[in-house]
Amino acid sequence: MEYKYLGNDLTEEKIKSLTPEARHVLCDELRDKIITTVSENGGHLASNLGVVELTVALLSVFDYKKDKIIWDVGHQSYSYKLLTGRFDRFDTLRQEGGVSGFPRISESPYDTLDTGHSSTSVSAAAGLARARDLLGDDSHVVAIIGDGSLNSGLAYEAINDIGQNKSKMLIILNDNEMSIDKNVGGLSKHLANIRVKSGYLSAKHTTELFLRRKLPVLGKPLMKTMIAVKDFFRFIVYRKKPTIFEDLGLLYYGIVDGHDTEALIKNISAVKDLQGPVLLHIVTKKGKGYKPAEDTPSDYHGVSGFDIATGKISGGGRSFTSVFGNKMIELASRDKKIAVICAAMSSGTGLVDYSFKFPERFFDCGIAEEHCVTMAAGLALSGYKPVVAIYSTFIQRAYDEILHDICYMNLHVVFALDRAGLVGNDGHTHHGLYDLNMFCSMPNMTVIAPRDYKSLQRALEYAVINVEGPCAVRYPRGAESVNTYDPGSDNAATVKEDCSDIKDPYIAEDKGTDYCIISVGNSFADGQSAVDILSEQGIFGKHINLTIVKPLNDKSIEALTSGVHFVFTLEEGITAGGVGTYIAQCISADHEVINIGIDDPMIRAASQSRQKEIAGIDGKSVADKIKRLLSRS
Amino acid sequence: MEYKYLGNDLTEEKIKSLTPEARHVLCDELRDKIITTVSENGGHLASNLGVVELTVALLSVFDYKKDKIIWDVGHQSYSYKLLTGRFDRFDTLRQEGGVSGFPRISESPYDTLDTGHSSTSVSAAAGLARARDLLGDDSHVVAIIGDGSLNSGLAYEAINDIGQNKSKMLIILNDNEMSIDKNVGGLSKHLANIRVKSGYLSAKHTTELFLRRKLPVLGKPLMKTMIAVKDFFRFIVYRKKPTIFEDLGLLYYGIVDGHDTEALIKNISAVKDLQGPVLLHIVTKKGKGYKPAEDTPSDYHGVSGFDIATGKISGGGRSFTSVFGNKMIELASRDKKIAVICAAMSSGTGLVDYSFKFPERFFDCGIAEEHCVTMAAGLALSGYKPVVAIYSTFIQRAYDEILHDICYMNLHVVFALDRAGLVGNDGHTHHGLYDLNMFCSMPNMTVIAPRDYKSLQRALEYAVINVEGPCAVRYPRGAESVNTYDPGSDNAATVKEDCSDIKDPYIAEDKGTDYCIISVGNSFADGQSAVDILSEQGIFGKHINLTIVKPLNDKSIEALTSGVHFVFTLEEGITAGGVGTYIAQCISADHEVINIGIDDPMIRAASQSRQKEIAGIDGKSVADKIKRLLSRS
Repeated sequence: MEYKYLGNDLTEEKIKSLTPEARHVLCDELRDKIITTVSENGGHLASNLGVVELTVALLSVFDYKKDKIIWDVGHQSYSYKLLTGRFDRFDTLRQEGGVSGFPRISESPYDTLDTGHSSTSVSAAAGLARARDLLGDDSHVVAIIGDGSLNSGLAYEAINDIGQNKSKMLIILNDNEMSIDKNVGGLSKHLANIRVKSGYLSAKHTTELFLRRKLPVLGKPLMKTMIAVKDFFRFIVYRKKPTIFEDLGLLYYGIVDGHDTEALIKNISAVKDLQGPVLLHIVTKKGKGYKPAEDTPSDYHGVSGFDIATGKISGGGRSFTSVFGNKMIELASRDKKIAVICAAMSSGTGLVDYSFKFPERFFDCGIAEEHCVTMAAGLALSGYKPVVAIYSTFIQRAYDEILHDICYMNLHVVFALDRAGLVGNDGHTHHGLYDLNMFCSMPNMTVIAPRDYKSLQRALEYAVINVEGPCAVRYPRGAESVNTYDPGSDNAATVKEDCSDIKDPYIAEDKGTDYCIISVGNSFADGQSAVDILSEQGIFGKHINLTIVKPLNDKSIEALTSGVHFVFTLEEGITAGGVGTYIAQCISADHEVINIGIDDPMIRAASQSRQKEIAGIDGKSVADKIKRLLSRS
Repeated sequence: MEYKYLGNDLTEEKIKSLTPEARHVLCDELRDKIITTVSENGGHLASNLGVVELTVALLSVFDYKKDKIIWDVGHQSYSYKLLTGRFDRFDTLRQEGGVSGFPRISESPYDTLDTGHSSTSVSAAAGLARARDLLGDDSHVVAIIGDGSLNSGLAYEAINDIGQNKSKMLIILNDNEMSIDKNVGGLSKHLANIRVKSGYLSAKHTTELFLRRKLPVLGKPLMKTMIAVKDFFRFIVYRKKPTIFEDLGLLYYGIVDGHDTEALIKNISAVKDLQGPVLLHIVTKKGKGYKPAEDTPSDYHGVSGFDIATGKISGGGRSFTSVFGNKMIELASRDKKIAVICAAMSSGTGLVDYSFKFPERFFDCGIAEEHCVTMAAGLALSGYKPVVAIYSTFIQRAYDEILHDICYMNLHVVFALDRAGLVGNDGHTHHGLYDLNMFCSMPNMTVIAPRDYKSLQRALEYAVINVEGPCAVRYPRGAESVNTYDPGSDNAATVKEDCSDIKDPYIAEDKGTDYCIISVGNSFADGQSAVDILSEQGIFGKHINLTIVKPLNDKSIEALTSGVHFVFTLEEGITAGGVGTYIAQCISADHEVINIGIDDPMIRAASQSRQKEIAGIDGKSVADKIKRLLSRS
């Protein structure tokens, strides 16, 4: 498609001078570019299609070179990127060295804040607004946050704080009735109530009527009048009862049709200079403009690519995620005390089928990781066995609750940490690199890192049935690369009644004493690949793999490394405070222990395998390191 | 004082059979016991005096052996403990082996949840209520939470979740207009609004009138009628506009005078069997019944003891806390870009004077650690230098925000972590043992552990002026035990323009090569004490102290440990992933490195010095360990 407006030469000034008709065409062009690019590169589709008009409206009203625009989570920033100088590079979206799928301050001066985790926008906006006030300039600070993100305590803390503060700040509530999955919580009911009571269906019409009659030109003088009549304005056009936002001290305006660019421009212009924090409530449709995504937005939240004509999404198939979901169904069928908790990601964590089979023992608490964990404490104190399924990167939100509300009381809560390790094209904000460090340092905690599907199943069984205190099971994004339980494989692991198949180190290779690799969980494949490379070069060693990494099976590790001077630990997690440091502490006196892990967690978007190479934890890098060290000594 | 009712033989049944007059006397007796005990043992006074009547009312209505009563934070649980079987041991409050100052499930089956950190009660209650529903029993779940604790995102996440769920649950909002300091935030204004609009001053009278006229006996049949007329009931007696709690899906009732035991009993009885989550809003006065604490409740929040007759509080004087506060005043006077953020603890963090001197650059965001950190990101992005002052134990709440919103963007935010290390009589929930592990593992982070007041001042200056990215400064509770900058001391440290006095290791002892102790920050004194003990026994080594622990000054450490086989690291923090593990990684090849730190973080209440002994990090324990190891090899 040839673009009439969208392109590198679409400057800020040009955007502002577009006619309503041109803006309409621009929105079509943005949608085309986003759909085309995401169909090939993968990425977030539904959320980006939902905010095309909003983005055009924001850039028509605000000065993006001076004002601060913050996209909460940031997975909806594609239109913004296309309009703020990154059109020509947009084909590199989410590729190595390319345009990030999230705002990055290192990528553009117009990206205000690095985002990726939910609900940070209002807090950061509060800081930016306070700094602006201290500096005495008149720029605008705008945060765009979804209704799902408002479930998070962080967003509430921020709104509660700005409610007491009279800094000028605009929060646009992008209400699409969704987190990644269908939204939950009391707040979402409250928003639904507002929509119904304000007669949202006719809001667009009413607003336009009102604006046309009362405000023919939105100039400065009229603006002042508007501020004076704001209560009247709000009362007549919008709604009659105070919202939670007003209770917390914000000025509430809404509801505006988020796909009506002209209504957005008018309303944003009307409220942008009000003193104090303003919340403008708009309603959008996730996936807007692409039928398959409109119909099932969850499916098109994050995709690895799709066929535009048919809507068929690439990928799928068996993965650690689906194996987890199926195993939970099996375990919950056997044990009535199992309950599963997730944070707005039943599909992402593979729990959709589970949630249909055991609705009474499935709790989606929304984007509220802290609450998920402490709620699990309540279940565990009553004899239930909660399994908290949260991506490794997001469990960081609940560090204190895991330590304080679970570990100190030694409660039997299982943490299922999907996306542990490097995650690929989402980039560094989404890596799950800190879980081993976090969980291994906590008292009473058992930590398990399965290497393949079967060991994941075994780990879950062990975690739920055998372990008596807290237990974390961490597994990577994607599919298994080995199956050590395959009877056809060398040294096939076999299921043991006493769970020794996951408690004892798995001896994958034992051909010499030149070195020993101790790999953690899914780093097994890379360890084994290093072994193969070294063997070809006449360097022979051992490779053992750990599934349970806490408590460490000290005696086995000592016995297995006996007679080997160089011990290389290998894990797909931050080296600092990782499993390697524990292994070093238990055997260092007799050996030289070299910890191989991820030294710099900020590995940018690329494929998972490329990211391993960049981190130096792939088979070849590991083999090189070992060879270098052996040749030096 | 001889007690007529309070005592070991005051069983649950007896409490329930007391007359109103007897309950009144019991409340006096509880106050007497609390004031007497806290005046000697120290502890939380104001919060406990505020809930005496509430506790008596709860135990008059609920069956504490079956129902679940959760005290948020738990620093107000003294009356509860006195009435649930711990009267005879109460003199041991907060002492080694004694009654804990917080609920502990290991101490009593009637303590529902270990608490200490704010705002966990509603989440845990949600889990307990869901488990109860699954089990099909009819017990009650009650959470008592203060208005300050409601500022925390965790509490909001929980309320938002239970609002969508119709589990029976009673939340008692204990509104005393306080966090530890005067409460802040939009919510606190909303609560004030409710108090004013509901005509709280006359609420007690109205309620009693209504209850007497309409509900002579609160039997089951009447209960049903009441549920049917609940809207009417609420409307007439309480208030006319929905609150934030109703917006989130709860049933709101209030306001009740929290010092009127009879009104509390009536109202709690009236709402306890309602289906769905109920919030009962009561108003109490912190410090109630002890004039000095009523007048200045912040001063009596946590005390180390006081004189009952005069109200004079023990302790005070110079401390790391006061040195920090004064230094911030000096730095903020010099540098207009410095801003300070705290989380409801301006007095606890020594910032009261600062807040008066620089109100425009002081932000108390309430109990909202996550928001404090991400708000700081906004300030830093605008060129300000925010200093976030939060106790080490509470910064755990903001793990993800520190990593994701500060470190990944390499923002210059300073974290001032008071109460780092063992904290004494508050016990394990309040230790600051994880900060070194947390902060040292994060990219771009500088971590500084001062050993005395002067090095704290130097560290703050370096952190604010010289460091360009994120920086944490951690310092212990209480007073310095050494002053290495004292010109009269051996090897006196001197202030250096280039900051080498805190960048380079401080060489405290260099008398031999039998061993080397590398102590971290305030572990200096214990390291030096070990040196002295060993010297007396003819064992001579080195002692070097690190102030900046990240980045590690590898070369200096290597040079200084050269020729020494046994290197003992010593830190007052969790051994797992602590500074010692980093030292081991940088020098292990040539040395045997033994990490001494705190292996088990769950060290119970005792004095700080006793806790060091229990942990084995005091001078004598360290000397013993070194001697044992040397004699073995």
